[in-house]
Amino acid sequence: MNFASDNVTGACPAVLEALVRANDGAALSYGEDLWTARVQDALRDVFEKPDLLAFPVATGTAANALALASLVPPYGAVYCHREAHINVDECGAPELYTGGAKLVPLAGEGAKIVPHDLAAAAQGHGVVHHVQPAAVSITQATEAGCVYSPDEVAAVAETARSKRLRLHMDGARFANAVAALDVAPAEITWQAGVEVLSFGATKNGCLAAEAVVFFRPELAETFAFHRKRAGHLFSKGRVLSAQLEAYLADDLWLENARHANAMARRLGGGLAALPGCGLWAPVEANEVFTLLPPPVVAALQRVGVQFIDGFFGPGVQRFVCAWNTQLEDVEAVISAAAAVGGRVEAAGV
Amino acid sequence: MNFASDNVTGACPAVLEALVRANDGAALSYGEDLWTARVQDALRDVFEKPDLLAFPVATGTAANALALASLVPPYGAVYCHREAHINVDECGAPELYTGGAKLVPLAGEGAKIVPHDLAAAAQGHGVVHHVQPAAVSITQATEAGCVYSPDEVAAVAETARSKRLRLHMDGARFANAVAALDVAPAEITWQAGVEVLSFGATKNGCLAAEAVVFFRPELAETFAFHRKRAGHLFSKGRVLSAQLEAYLADDLWLENARHANAMARRLGGGLAALPGCGLWAPVEANEVFTLLPPPVVAALQRVGVQFIDGFFGPGVQRFVCAWNTQLEDVEAVISAAAAVGGRVEAAGV
Amino acid sequence: MNFASDNVTGACPAVLEALVRANDGAALSYGEDLWTARVQDALRDVFEKPDLLAFPVATGTAANALALASLVPPYGAVYCHREAHINVDECGAPELYTGGAKLVPLAGEGAKIVPHDLAAAAQGHGVVHHVQPAAVSITQATEAGCVYSPDEVAAVAETARSKRLRLHMDGARFANAVAALDVAPAEITWQAGVEVLSFGATKNGCLAAEAVVFFRPELAETFAFHRKRAGHLFSKGRVLSAQLEAYLADDLWLENARHANAMARRLGGGLAALPGCGLWAPVEANEVFTLLPPPVVAALQRVGVQFIDGFFGPGVQRFVCAWNTQLEDVEAVISAAAAVGGRVEAAGV
Amino acid sequence: MNFASDNVTGACPAVLEALVRANDGAALSYGEDLWTARVQDALRDVFEKPDLLAFPVATGTAANALALASLVPPYGAVYCHREAHINVDECGAPELYTGGAKLVPLAGEGAKIVPHDLAAAAQGHGVVHHVQPAAVSITQATEAGCVYSPDEVAAVAETARSKRLRLHMDGARFANAVAALDVAPAEITWQAGVEVLSFGATKNGCLAAEAVVFFRPELAETFAFHRKRAGHLFSKGRVLSAQLEAYLADDLWLENARHANAMARRLGGGLAALPGCGLWAPVEANEVFTLLPPPVVAALQRVGVQFIDGFFGPGVQRFVCAWNTQLEDVEAVISAAAAVGGRVEAAGV
Repeated sequence: MNFASDNVTGACPAVLEALVRANDGAALSYGEDLWTARVQDALRDVFEKPDLLAFPVATGTAANALALASLVPPYGAVYCHREAHINVDECGAPELYTGGAKLVPLAGEGAKIVPHDLAAAAQGHGVVHHVQPAAVSITQATEAGCVYSPDEVAAVAETARSKRLRLHMDGARFANAVAALDVAPAEITWQAGVEVLSFGATKNGCLAAEAVVFFRPELAETFAFHRKRAGHLFSKGRVLSAQLEAYLADDLWLENARHANAMARRLGGGLAALPGCGLWAPVEANEVFTLLPPPVVAALQRVGVQFIDGFFGPGVQRFVCAWNTQLEDVEAVISAAAAVGGRVEAAGV
Repeated sequence: MNFASDNVTGACPAVLEALVRANDGAALSYGEDLWTARVQDALRDVFEKPDLLAFPVATGTAANALALASLVPPYGAVYCHREAHINVDECGAPELYTGGAKLVPLAGEGAKIVPHDLAAAAQGHGVVHHVQPAAVSITQATEAGCVYSPDEVAAVAETARSKRLRLHMDGARFANAVAALDVAPAEITWQAGVEVLSFGATKNGCLAAEAVVFFRPELAETFAFHRKRAGHLFSKGRVLSAQLEAYLADDLWLENARHANAMARRLGGGLAALPGCGLWAPVEANEVFTLLPPPVVAALQRVGVQFIDGFFGPGVQRFVCAWNTQLEDVEAVISAAAAVGGRVEAAGV
Repeated sequence: MNFASDNVTGACPAVLEALVRANDGAALSYGEDLWTARVQDALRDVFEKPDLLAFPVATGTAANALALASLVPPYGAVYCHREAHINVDECGAPELYTGGAKLVPLAGEGAKIVPHDLAAAAQGHGVVHHVQPAAVSITQATEAGCVYSPDEVAAVAETARSKRLRLHMDGARFANAVAALDVAPAEITWQAGVEVLSFGATKNGCLAAEAVVFFRPELAETFAFHRKRAGHLFSKGRVLSAQLEAYLADDLWLENARHANAMARRLGGGLAALPGCGLWAPVEANEVFTLLPPPVVAALQRVGVQFIDGFFGPGVQRFVCAWNTQLEDVEAVISAAAAVGGRVEAAGV
Repeated sequence: MNFASDNVTGACPAVLEALVRANDGAALSYGEDLWTARVQDALRDVFEKPDLLAFPVATGTAANALALASLVPPYGAVYCHREAHINVDECGAPELYTGGAKLVPLAGEGAKIVPHDLAAAAQGHGVVHHVQPAAVSITQATEAGCVYSPDEVAAVAETARSKRLRLHMDGARFANAVAALDVAPAEITWQAGVEVLSFGATKNGCLAAEAVVFFRPELAETFAFHRKRAGHLFSKGRVLSAQLEAYLADDLWLENARHANAMARRLGGGLAALPGCGLWAPVEANEVFTLLPPPVVAALQRVGVQFIDGFFGPGVQRFVCAWNTQLEDVEAVISAAAAVGGRVEAAGV
């Protein structure tokens, strides 16, 4: 029962089969293959944006850092939430790829950026002493498992425009957000003002595949050079693109995400209902952040439930559901917690 | 009949099957999985070096650039052949990952470095005006399809030692070189003085998998940070390691390489024997560099043979054989060339 | 009456005369001159540290960024106050020179770092996902014009040691801090745990001269290469060193600083005593941060007093005194403010 | 008798006096001062280009590297002569400031670039595997003491245009070249196609002052940020600009250069006329490259003549004349060489 992350899973069957099928025969290398062309077409359909440009890469860190490298100068400032993956979990990849741009961390509930704070931070345009306001990056779903509504994205975008900032979205769990909001992908991205999206797939049914999606093609001019120079242009491009093609076909990506979200809702609801247990953040996508009493934590660990304890704050646990999380495992976690919870309560702890 | 590169192929069956098998179940992420541990063990066996450290990455450019980033300071000089992949074909990846180190190009027959030239170039130790001699990178097999003998590697290594340079080997086609030389992998690497190897697999039967192998573990201290920061640490590490495990098992890697080399020998021999045709470089591994008359080139292109014409010099063609090159295709190329060749000769061209 | 900054001044007479004298004759270039050797000796005396290494540079930004480049890897974290010059006013110089290290901003009264906050932030040693805790930089005197006591420096140093961080001090106004504390320079630096100091001189009587002082010489190994590569090694080294030599002779640096501090105390005391006026921060060195009513601000601007209004917060003014600030100018500012202040009060504003 | 370099000298009297005069009073900091404005005006007059933009910096390395940082992307290629200062003597500064661009070295007599070689090297536009042709940098006068004629510059510029390269000129000894050619500065720069010039002054009468001159102002958009971020924006801008203002006034810069050139011609002529002695390169500016027999070299060293022996090739010596080289010293060198030369000849060596 592994809830440590949605990246402990393998690929879902359709993706794996597509990869196997794509293995046959010779193909043009370095992204000139047909799979890659079809992935871009599929993304154009999904996002209802016939001129978007899409570039497959293998990891989310690469997607984010390469996207930012296309958007900001080395003396630029990138505003993001202080808990953002780009700020905390990428060992400085954005700094490397941008040539030393500065990530400026902002606070905000649910790991969301507050437009007012963004406006207050983005100062100093044209003053040579200060790094230059260049971009803002938001995460959808956020590091706290929350989801920006279309209006919330639009509000960030409006501030970004007024401050001449590019708007990037880290969509490592974009599918979960779209599924949760039940909106058209266009509505939560370019129609709301997002200019570049790291479209995640690895965590939601692929093995290693993301796409950097430029909704404004003129922003992509330097991307291909940055990608190659970073060693992220695969010679056998179909490895990435065959995964993405299958992932996008027949709404598989949304189906996977809906399942994961549903499992998370059940898990969060079940745990939160137990005596002495609570949620640290609302369950809006596929992550569950709980406040469980130490005996419950210990008991779950004892029976082999894997989750993260303490990283997001003392006393906070994170459980992540994935495309293949089994309802019986979810129920087993709740039951195990309930058993202890009862004893805890009985003991008056 | 695609001889454009050994990267137009898919994975060989055993590698693909291993990837499919590895997909099952949950696994620790970010390289803490069992496949990755087993790959390191397998490489220790292959190289008879129980303390080597190995790190899977997805592309050869990443392997080379990350290896160099571990070896040289930003104000360092890296000596390499002027035709080296790191100098010509990686869009500046070594410069990015090292923080701006300088690649100093050297000449040399067969795209091999000449120790005397290396010694002459590696000057200025301790003089602040000059980039500091830091590393030398040789390619095995070389960009001209040639192979360094163990003695040749040892001669470069001796110069490197005397100039206090680290010795890196770009082994994108390392398997082909080992197969061609019929030596123990140890003999052509650490026993000859190589300290870090980019162990290629993508071109020889994998989909996207290389390993950076440190024969001196103390040189690897910063590697893991560089890799993560470059977005080259896969969350689902088994994607890379399952390929490499199968590739290394039962000498599959050498078997694939031997086949490719044999096909190249046959192709090179067959073409060179034709009237008016010659070889630009000896066929020592799996690449064939030819000097074919324009009518032959045109005729081969007309019947759909894919190869590279002109990139390595005017009038020079490159054909690359792979793990899955078919003998009948090789013979078909020779026949097609022979047919034209006869006509060319008859016409007195 | 220019109180905008201590960098609006020229050099003090002794420094200028030394520069003129040094101009005669030929001298070895690139720092091999005698002035540079003597400056290092003088700093060894001043700091009672016979093995320190000192390197002149022209600007404070260069001093800070080059010092940090010697201390941290590109994937390192540098902790500093969020108002620190390196974080706010150097347009990303530390990021450039370190190859992309991350500045992690901390809060704290008087622009001082709180050891407890430093300890809480410096996490993740050895975890590849996170930038690696590498250094802490404190500013003496701080951006709020405050001064760390020896005990306060030692407390930061103790935390730094426990977290394996190098300790850098940005001493753009180091002289003012030493004069204010009336301590031996050693006591507030290496004896308290400082490992590298940006020893400022430009703001306190030089034209353009700073020195990077390594109290632990082994940390300076790469400095000379970083400096050259940054274009900060002057061919005519005496330009910088002659200034520094005169600056250090006969305690001129402390005399200048004592004067500036005394002027600031008088200015701060005089303004704070006025009705409706206050200090935003205590006057501990040569900067005065005030909270003056708008009519007072306007009146001072009207009579041509130059100072900074609003940058450090709404309603906050900064006045900086220098080695050549005239007491009569200070009194004139106080009188002008008092005149308005009286009217303000009379008007019941 | 120091002929080691033109950077062993102090400033010429007018420059030093201007610096002393400029020291008085308060001035706006960070380049907002009046001296800096006047320097730009003076350069507009000198170059007959009313819209040029000029930025003072302290060192030639900074001027070159910052100029290139404004012109090329991090994945760009900069073509230069293999002996160019930027390639050999700046410890990788261009690589640092451009974020890792690649310097591609070319051969050529007299350290001049040959347009045909440039055209042959500047390949691969738009191909992601290759660094992108971005700029060419020529040195005037060259590292071999030679001078590009206006036609030669124009020929390089024409190739640059056809290959979409920016044209930068490293003018560390620009004054000597202009004096030697006796042309208008405009003729040898923007009228011939130069877009950005590192206008040197340090070697020809200043202490530490250069100017980066953009003949096309739109290319300067990012320069100010690069300069600040590199720590090369002086707070007391008059330090640099007062020097440059005096240097440009009344053709002082050309007068100094004419003197240095005349001394070099006499020295070269005198030495070349001696038996067994020759010139390695023609004396076109203020540098003299000789081929002196070892006994002559030894004798000169014995009597305290300073020059560089061997760095530019075995058996090659370099003597540099400056604004203050004395004719009697030149004659003394020739006499000392002649004395030995006679003995050498007599001995039949």
